[in-house]
Amino acid sequence: MQTISITPSENKKQKPADDSLVFGRQFTDHMFIMDYEEGRGWYDPRVVPYQPLEMDPAAMIFHYGQTVFEGLKAYRTKQDTIQLFRPAENIKRLNRSNARMCIPTLDESMALEAIQTLVDIDRDWVPHKEGTSLYIRPFVIATEPYLGVSASKTYTFMIILSPVGAYYEAGINPVKIAVENEYIRAVKGGTGEAKTAGNYAGSMIAQENVAKKGYAQVLWLDGHERKYIEEVGSMNVFFKIGDKVVTPHLSGSILPGVTRKSVIQLLKDWGITVEERPILLSEILDAHKNGQLEEAFGSGTAAVISPMGELFYNDQSYVINHHTTGALSKRVYDTLTGIQYGTVDDPHNWIVDVPKK
Amino acid sequence: MQTISITPSENKKQKPADDSLVFGRQFTDHMFIMDYEEGRGWYDPRVVPYQPLEMDPAAMIFHYGQTVFEGLKAYRTKQDTIQLFRPAENIKRLNRSNARMCIPTLDESMALEAIQTLVDIDRDWVPHKEGTSLYIRPFVIATEPYLGVSASKTYTFMIILSPVGAYYEAGINPVKIAVENEYIRAVKGGTGEAKTAGNYAGSMIAQENVAKKGYAQVLWLDGHERKYIEEVGSMNVFFKIGDKVVTPHLSGSILPGVTRKSVIQLLKDWGITVEERPILLSEILDAHKNGQLEEAFGSGTAAVISPMGELFYNDQSYVINHHTTGALSKRVYDTLTGIQYGTVDDPHNWIVDVPKK
Ligand SMILES: Cc1ncc(COP(=O)(O)O)c(C=O)c1O
Ligand SMILES: Cc1ncc(COP(=O)(O)O)c(C=O)c1O
Repeated sequence: MQTISITPSENKKQKPADDSLVFGRQFTDHMFIMDYEEGRGWYDPRVVPYQPLEMDPAAMIFHYGQTVFEGLKAYRTKQDTIQLFRPAENIKRLNRSNARMCIPTLDESMALEAIQTLVDIDRDWVPHKEGTSLYIRPFVIATEPYLGVSASKTYTFMIILSPVGAYYEAGINPVKIAVENEYIRAVKGGTGEAKTAGNYAGSMIAQENVAKKGYAQVLWLDGHERKYIEEVGSMNVFFKIGDKVVTPHLSGSILPGVTRKSVIQLLKDWGITVEERPILLSEILDAHKNGQLEEAFGSGTAAVISPMGELFYNDQSYVINHHTTGALSKRVYDTLTGIQYGTVDDPHNWIVDVPKK
Repeated sequence: MQTISITPSENKKQKPADDSLVFGRQFTDHMFIMDYEEGRGWYDPRVVPYQPLEMDPAAMIFHYGQTVFEGLKAYRTKQDTIQLFRPAENIKRLNRSNARMCIPTLDESMALEAIQTLVDIDRDWVPHKEGTSLYIRPFVIATEPYLGVSASKTYTFMIILSPVGAYYEAGINPVKIAVENEYIRAVKGGTGEAKTAGNYAGSMIAQENVAKKGYAQVLWLDGHERKYIEEVGSMNVFFKIGDKVVTPHLSGSILPGVTRKSVIQLLKDWGITVEERPILLSEILDAHKNGQLEEAFGSGTAAVISPMGELFYNDQSYVINHHTTGALSKRVYDTLTGIQYGTVDDPHNWIVDVPKK
């Protein structure tokens, strides 16, 4: 494996107070970079001071959006160790996204070492307050200065870090969601399975529209028939109907969330039936009508679990569980965050340490 | 209107010979830049030496792909004037793309003046040889350093220029096209109508796959039923069936090409029936079987007209017009390129001059 060279920053920034953290606006003292050239492969892995990139205006990322990214977090435990939650899952997904986007894959152990090395150097940036964490953003961009529409011959793989506050300041909190009727996030055969920029650029307009009406997120329907439930905002989605839990199967158009996979495992551990399958919106509305829709929640790295307090569709509001957080949603949230912060047992070995060098 | 400031380059590059031009790899001495900030609007339009951009690694373009672009050309006439083909159409499309992607729109006359000013300064870069031209690439990128998924509050609008060789070295030339069965370019409700990076990033894998099998481009089918014809590669597509010409209507998932619009106008001028409507792939294959499919061609700024000599679908090859360029394809090509280079009458005032300052 290639050795990661390290150039420490000489101008350390002032760290924001744990109480003033906002998502994704402040970055730590260092970043990781590695380059790729056709014929040479990935080379020169290095940790350097956080700094601007020099980019040719013709770099392909600006024109054809050939890029992938990931999102995971580092958590500080009560013992002041720093730990990651299932980082290998994010790295595997990064490589699956790479394959879809014609980007050369990364060596998975190198990528993990890159994350660990960078987080270790900036470990003082992992905030202390309950619910806070250090957001880790690995990404790859196409850098060849060329306007032809074909895969770039050069790339840069980077990792940047941003300290983030607690998602729920005052305890886990249900949100209002609107079903999206006009816009489509993804369709099988497209790029919905990959964590790539275009999926997010295309979704902004829908998000802006519902935000104006007071909804936190959109619920995406499938692009073929606009009947099946896909995701909610940038989260996967679960519904508790009677005694069982249902979630859309990995159809080719939704992102295979690491949180989703972990929620399914926990539910199975607890002996709860989970069905991964196509879910008609009408099935959920019917279950609501029959009083069977007990809970609904989104799952993702940012919020971990985000309960749905209300679903808006065709001029009608469907209130779920009296706008309160259901017992199962709460149990999943407490267990997952407990594992992440090291206060709850980790039977599946999901935690990976960031060793101090 | 804001005045465009000009900083001339002091290190002029050596210009490539007209015979050695390749598409999109060489750039001229200058570029245009203009910035946007929420609350302030677009400001500081300027022509500066072509140079790298300094970008924060957290700039939203790298993560969420919020960006749009355009492509048009400047042509040198026999009288050594420089002219543009329907630039207002490209600028209007840029603004429609902006609206879809939650990017603030541009003042259209400012954008045209920016193109004219930049091309004028680099007018010696417009090559002389027949069929050559200067490719013009306007684009907007989201620059705010922020990892939240929402529209950026800052943007940069740029224009870069690249001299390009003749598309057809030895006369207009039919290509082999394969129908794409696995991947989808776009779907109604998605971003297919907008000229935005993600559409191109998502299409690369299909293009790579068919190139390996000896096909020049893919023919995209609709994302809903995979039965209707959408586009071919980065071109719109026309079929001559008997006496009439059919082309897919602007369904919401295909790009409204400037060349497409111009072809339709020319055909109407000539008294030829043009139908813009949904076109089943099976209709085209049936027409082929019945000997009614006389010609097929793609239309776009790069090639102007690209005849289809062969269509490959489900393990079968459908040869069109004996792999030769049909009379109508040729007539459209000759007329459009004639107007572009100023050798043919321009009854619709499609040509806009680049005045010498
Ligand atoms: C579109 C989308 N769906 C779902 C998720 C949830 O994935 P994960 O649980 O891996 O964070 C994300 C990422 O956060 C996402 O961007
Ligand atoms: C996807 C796509 N379709 C069609 C076209 C043709 O458009 P135009 O004729 O404006 O060049 C383009 C651009 O060149 C394109 O990128």
